[in-house]
Amino acid sequence: SSDVLGEFGTTIFEVMSKLAIDHEAINLGQGFPDEDGPADILAKAAEAVKDGPNQYPPMMGLPELRVAVAEHDFRFYGISGNWQTDTLVTSGATEAIAASLFGLINPGDEVVLFEPLYDCYLPLVKLAGGIPKYVRLDPPHWELDEDRLNAAFSEKTKLVLLNSPMNPTGKVFTVEELEKIAALVLKYDAYAICDEVYEHIVFGDKKHVSLLTFPEMGERTARIASAGKTFSLTGWKVGYVTAAAPMIARIAKAHQFLVFTTPPNLQKGVAYGLKQDDRFFEDLKYSMQSKRDLFRDGLQGIGFSTAQCDGTYFLNADINSIGFDGTDEEFCRLITTEAGVAAVPVSAFYQSEGAMTNFARFCFCKKPEVLEAAIEKLGRFF
Amino acid sequence: SSDVLGEFGTTIFEVMSKLAIDHEAINLGQGFPDEDGPADILAKAAEAVKDGPNQYPPMMGLPELRVAVAEHDFRFYGISGNWQTDTLVTSGATEAIAASLFGLINPGDEVVLFEPLYDCYLPLVKLAGGIPKYVRLDPPHWELDEDRLNAAFSEKTKLVLLNSPMNPTGKVFTVEELEKIAALVLKYDAYAICDEVYEHIVFGDKKHVSLLTFPEMGERTARIASAGKTFSLTGWKVGYVTAAAPMIARIAKAHQFLVFTTPPNLQKGVAYGLKQDDRFFEDLKYSMQSKRDLFRDGLQGIGFSTAQCDGTYFLNADINSIGFDGTDEEFCRLITTEAGVAAVPVSAFYQSEGAMTNFARFCFCKKPEVLEAAIEKLGRFF
Ligand SMILES: CSCCC(=O)C(=O)O
Ligand SMILES: CSCCC(=O)C(=O)O
Repeated sequence: SSDVLGEFGTTIFEVMSKLAIDHEAINLGQGFPDEDGPADILAKAAEAVKDGPNQYPPMMGLPELRVAVAEHDFRFYGISGNWQTDTLVTSGATEAIAASLFGLINPGDEVVLFEPLYDCYLPLVKLAGGIPKYVRLDPPHWELDEDRLNAAFSEKTKLVLLNSPMNPTGKVFTVEELEKIAALVLKYDAYAICDEVYEHIVFGDKKHVSLLTFPEMGERTARIASAGKTFSLTGWKVGYVTAAAPMIARIAKAHQFLVFTTPPNLQKGVAYGLKQDDRFFEDLKYSMQSKRDLFRDGLQGIGFSTAQCDGTYFLNADINSIGFDGTDEEFCRLITTEAGVAAVPVSAFYQSEGAMTNFARFCFCKKPEVLEAAIEKLGRFF
Repeated sequence: SSDVLGEFGTTIFEVMSKLAIDHEAINLGQGFPDEDGPADILAKAAEAVKDGPNQYPPMMGLPELRVAVAEHDFRFYGISGNWQTDTLVTSGATEAIAASLFGLINPGDEVVLFEPLYDCYLPLVKLAGGIPKYVRLDPPHWELDEDRLNAAFSEKTKLVLLNSPMNPTGKVFTVEELEKIAALVLKYDAYAICDEVYEHIVFGDKKHVSLLTFPEMGERTARIASAGKTFSLTGWKVGYVTAAAPMIARIAKAHQFLVFTTPPNLQKGVAYGLKQDDRFFEDLKYSMQSKRDLFRDGLQGIGFSTAQCDGTYFLNADINSIGFDGTDEEFCRLITTEAGVAAVPVSAFYQSEGAMTNFARFCFCKKPEVLEAAIEKLGRFF
């Protein structure tokens, strides 16, 4: 409702991106790669634009993309669903989350969220009439505290909205942590909506595991992923959902009225993309990992302590560690305007009282020379 | 909420399109052209896909498209707004309507709707917590009855959702009718959301007039249009909203969380498209008008009476007029499976009690030979 939305300002990403542009700063705030995804995916989509048809595709998505999603999920997670009933294409992961919330909860239902949380989660939960319950994770290790987790669940819990690998923390939930979440979802007969858009950006020996594959979770879990992060095409806004047929039916009903359908030409490009060989996905992972290493080493060289980062393309730096004692917001404005490097304050991702205010989030999905230039600027400034 | 959505079945468009495919019928049900829009628009978008950037455009839309929207609105309606504050790009008109409702109303607010009404209106009003109030229009002339109009407004009225040119009726609201609506919107200090996607598909001496241009309505009216209908690219899902800055700010806030942004490559194609010369828009109008004439004459030749159609690409036929005395739904199923021509029952667009059940809606934005073949099949069957 308009009252609910009135609470929320312009997203921190747009605020910091604008400041970055105004000050010609290197923008490590808003999360987007500085190189577009594979040329052959672009060529496929461009061809589909040119050759058409450019009319409404089926509301649930083009069969070829839905088949590709099912195949991808089988290849990487052993999920063997029926593409016709268990997959849905959406206009990005954000719309998939909106449709899941509108499709699955009723006003007054409680929704468990993990803090710090991605910026659209809370407004969407509130628009759908949900009551947020927070489980807070603390830097630098972002471990899941079992007492906090238990305390967030109740008889009124209808849904858990989980993001793993997690933005802005860079945390990848472990199997043990996911087991605890699954146990509570089952105990309270709730749903799990899993935003897994960073599924292929996981480092070292860490592994992304989907909650959908846990025992008894198949009937109550929806897995959301997107072309934006996997193919470095954040502007395409092509997302996809995998879930059991009755859940997909409910989510699709909301999707049908919120946007109805997603451009068929871009869907064709993504269908092609999902068939990339394993090498493509490994390259994505290793290339992002080497960017993380480069940037983390650089920050540490300047004297910053950094929080644990096992996945996503975000790294959090402790601003106290170099003796800065203002807030993270002050820090981010300062480095944007004075050092020429933009970041976003992690406190912007906390909604409940008493947020940490000493971490700044840097997005490292940029060319090595850009990351090096940012480190140099920061090094010169501090 | 999931309870609200539970009331609604799969959209009639998908149901009839599926039946049409199963029976290899000519699909005059769901409204989409059988020829894609101009090749130069397609080339522009294809180029933008290939050359990039394919990353997040600004949340409110690419400046070049927003400027083009403002110029278009000035050219056709004399609306002179500031593109930076008064325009917003959305993922199609449907998402624009969703964002407008979430951004402008609160649960319990009353929303005035004109019946028969386009299928997403009611679910979206209900999802946003609005209370629908209907003003019914009757075939064959679809005049606006002043008593019915007055009766729908009250102190609780927050918003009027108007579609002119109107789907499924083919009605173009007259200046006198719009004046009456404006007077009530002003009297009750409400908003008007105007779905004007068929703005360029208006026939004969009829003229589309935007409520936004009426005295004192500029501050409380949002005009929604889209590339889908104007450029025959229904799959692109690029819509745009024009309104005063404070309204755009509220609508944008909902847009930001529902989908965040719209593909930049397709936005570039539409920006180019909106600069087409007047000839393009005239050609669209005359080509659709000649299709209407061809199809209407054909139906009348078989013995059907048809309702008035002054705009859109929909024509409604009275099924009683040729002696069919079942419901419109039975009629539509019968002609799809037996005559090989699909249509949609107009009763599907009525939500309040006592709907007309003797009209079938035919979509005539098809090649002349397709329309002729449909007439021939119907003629043979009846
Ligand atoms: C919706 S813009 C923000 C992009 C992003 O995912 C992030 O920076 O966290
Ligand atoms: C959203 S599919 C329906 C297309 C359309 O506008 C119609 O047929 O009325």
